[in-house]
Amino acid sequence: MIAGILAVGTELLMGQTVNTNAAYLGAQLNNMGISVYYHLTVGDNRLRMKQLLKQLIDECDLIFTTGGLGPTLDDITKEVIAETLGLEMVFDDHSMARIKERFKLYNRQMTESNTRQALFPEGSYILDNDEGTAPACIVKVPNSEKRIYVLPGPPREMKHIFTRHMHADLLKRNNMAMHSKYLSVYDLGESSTEDALLDLIEIQHDPTIATYAGDGKVLVRVTSFNTDAKIATERVDKMVKEIYKRIGDHIVSDQGENINDVIVKKLIEKNLTIAFAESCTGGKLIESLIQVPGASKVINRGYITYDNSAKIEDLGVSPDTLSRYGAVSHETCLEMVKGVQSKAKVDIGISITGIAGPGGGTDEKPVGLVYIGVMFKDKCYTLEHHFRGDRSMIRQRALNTTLKIIFDLLKE
Amino acid sequence: MIAGILAVGTELLMGQTVNTNAAYLGAQLNNMGISVYYHLTVGDNRLRMKQLLKQLIDECDLIFTTGGLGPTLDDITKEVIAETLGLEMVFDDHSMARIKERFKLYNRQMTESNTRQALFPEGSYILDNDEGTAPACIVKVPNSEKRIYVLPGPPREMKHIFTRHMHADLLKRNNMAMHSKYLSVYDLGESSTEDALLDLIEIQHDPTIATYAGDGKVLVRVTSFNTDAKIATERVDKMVKEIYKRIGDHIVSDQGENINDVIVKKLIEKNLTIAFAESCTGGKLIESLIQVPGASKVINRGYITYDNSAKIEDLGVSPDTLSRYGAVSHETCLEMVKGVQSKAKVDIGISITGIAGPGGGTDEKPVGLVYIGVMFKDKCYTLEHHFRGDRSMIRQRALNTTLKIIFDLLKE
Repeated sequence: MIAGILAVGTELLMGQTVNTNAAYLGAQLNNMGISVYYHLTVGDNRLRMKQLLKQLIDECDLIFTTGGLGPTLDDITKEVIAETLGLEMVFDDHSMARIKERFKLYNRQMTESNTRQALFPEGSYILDNDEGTAPACIVKVPNSEKRIYVLPGPPREMKHIFTRHMHADLLKRNNMAMHSKYLSVYDLGESSTEDALLDLIEIQHDPTIATYAGDGKVLVRVTSFNTDAKIATERVDKMVKEIYKRIGDHIVSDQGENINDVIVKKLIEKNLTIAFAESCTGGKLIESLIQVPGASKVINRGYITYDNSAKIEDLGVSPDTLSRYGAVSHETCLEMVKGVQSKAKVDIGISITGIAGPGGGTDEKPVGLVYIGVMFKDKCYTLEHHFRGDRSMIRQRALNTTLKIIFDLLKE
Repeated sequence: MIAGILAVGTELLMGQTVNTNAAYLGAQLNNMGISVYYHLTVGDNRLRMKQLLKQLIDECDLIFTTGGLGPTLDDITKEVIAETLGLEMVFDDHSMARIKERFKLYNRQMTESNTRQALFPEGSYILDNDEGTAPACIVKVPNSEKRIYVLPGPPREMKHIFTRHMHADLLKRNNMAMHSKYLSVYDLGESSTEDALLDLIEIQHDPTIATYAGDGKVLVRVTSFNTDAKIATERVDKMVKEIYKRIGDHIVSDQGENINDVIVKKLIEKNLTIAFAESCTGGKLIESLIQVPGASKVINRGYITYDNSAKIEDLGVSPDTLSRYGAVSHETCLEMVKGVQSKAKVDIGISITGIAGPGGGTDEKPVGLVYIGVMFKDKCYTLEHHFRGDRSMIRQRALNTTLKIIFDLLKE
């Protein structure tokens, strides 16, 4: 099956909005084994929209449109589809009732133009939108098996309609079942991950393997499209086992979770408390964990001891250590972690001190030098790291490495 | 002038990469008064690429391609352009020498396929790429004034080539000079900003006004395309003055800067130190300021007193206050800010305590209730806020509001 995506919206052409919808749909369809040939974007212009739509109908089996379902006169996607296919626009009472209800719920005034949202190309299969006022639909191309999937533009609404109403229909239409696992890989770059799996990626057929990188995480997707669910599961599990053999030390979840979510979950499970003393990361570490709902059960406190006076007063680092070894040293890092653990009386203490730059580096202690201190049970140690990149990359890498260290502590 | 953008790359179709290049180019061209009619994306497929390219050449004056300039056999953009226009591919010695040099610099082995990067459609104007190995070019469409701007795919390289080599050429070709100001608006949503400027936006002609929102900031761009630089500057300045009259209290920069950058710059200028006591924001506030290079000159420390024990031990909040009024109260917030200022002996103390949810809310103290405490000079007060949204939105809004409070303190 071949698909094409048509995004409608002048704000996309003008670069006010990045077209993340196309990437989302592209990935979803690709996961289902559907080939996407085109992502096209056009403004709210009847003529040009019609022309691109015709092209897609000619060349593709499945056409997806996003945007242009709002109440204003600019919103013409459904009309243009009807015009292109030679269909009438018909009024849908059910949709109208739902739109009215929604306005009542939010106590907002409904305008005449909102009634346009209840008009659809005749014969459409109409889909309720629980995330907004614009209902979506699936339009059958007359005298063919082709379908146009008509989606709203706001990403939240678009994803809702796609996952709730279209995903299953597409799998069925493509005669496929699907089984996936998502491995979250940390502290190993995308290219190193790919290198380690290169032979598996090159021969991939069923299951398929794909990698996606972002924010220090590499997500490895393993998917089988086998129609037999049992076979699909077996094949995915076998491949996942092989991947664990190669890079298992770097996998923190086989459900695509982020490392900070996994850490908070494990801390809660094991009933362990934690506290932090951060210098160069400046709160990034504790913040990444406090993001997670439930964090208050296990996170006790953090000291952002940016100035040396704070290291001395709050953590009890000795002025002598600071003057003899410097703020960025094994010795200071060790006293920081001892200080935070004894102050907070927690199970796990973590400290970080380093030089994020751009200033502050020397030949002996260059920008990128970071010490990480750990205190847990009978263990107490500091690690030296050298990170590359600019200020923001160094701080991000220090964060990722520290999170991985905490994750590893919790494995035992 | 009408433009169209063609992105080449199977990774875009498959959703592995979001096409931010199209948005970037769209915004840049729009800023220059060039209308963008299409963003098209196609895979590494000769036939389909040629077909879309032909269409764009038919309908547009300026065509931009991104991607497909790499060394592998998949990278066929330049070849397809030559084929479509009936041009030969010719070898460029200068580019070859530069590519060789780059490989030597990085001590990497050059492969035969890298020589393909030095081939261009005949008559191309070749552009050096200082950010990667793939040179870019501008191709003249024979017997016309139309041009194809051929850009690399990696965003950093693409932006480099565009700003360094194409921007000035396009302005000249469009017979335009351009003058812009970027106003950074905080603590006022995008729709409120637009409402306040609606009449100005509706009648806009010269200068034009556009708004872009993200991460709590609304950027208002005011641009004049007048060929006379003096007139352009005057018109922009007059409009900016009018905008300041309406929403000046919310503008933190007329150079598009972020509020955290402005705050650190002002603290350094005024030689003021600052320290933080955060509970619900969990380090977000201090982290947003430590991001900024030079932060170490003015930021003393932060206490992330997530657990009540930390509020008592580190900030001297009285257990009696906590049990009588609760951790989220004017009283606790006030003792927190007094505590952090006396501990850190800084010029400015800031405290935050609130309920970010999803748990922890009551009828009396609902999720979203946040107190912000300030101590500066003879001032010492706490403010009560009610933020809407989920955990991450509430924390982001608490951050933005607090940053705006700090910015306002520094105005005096």
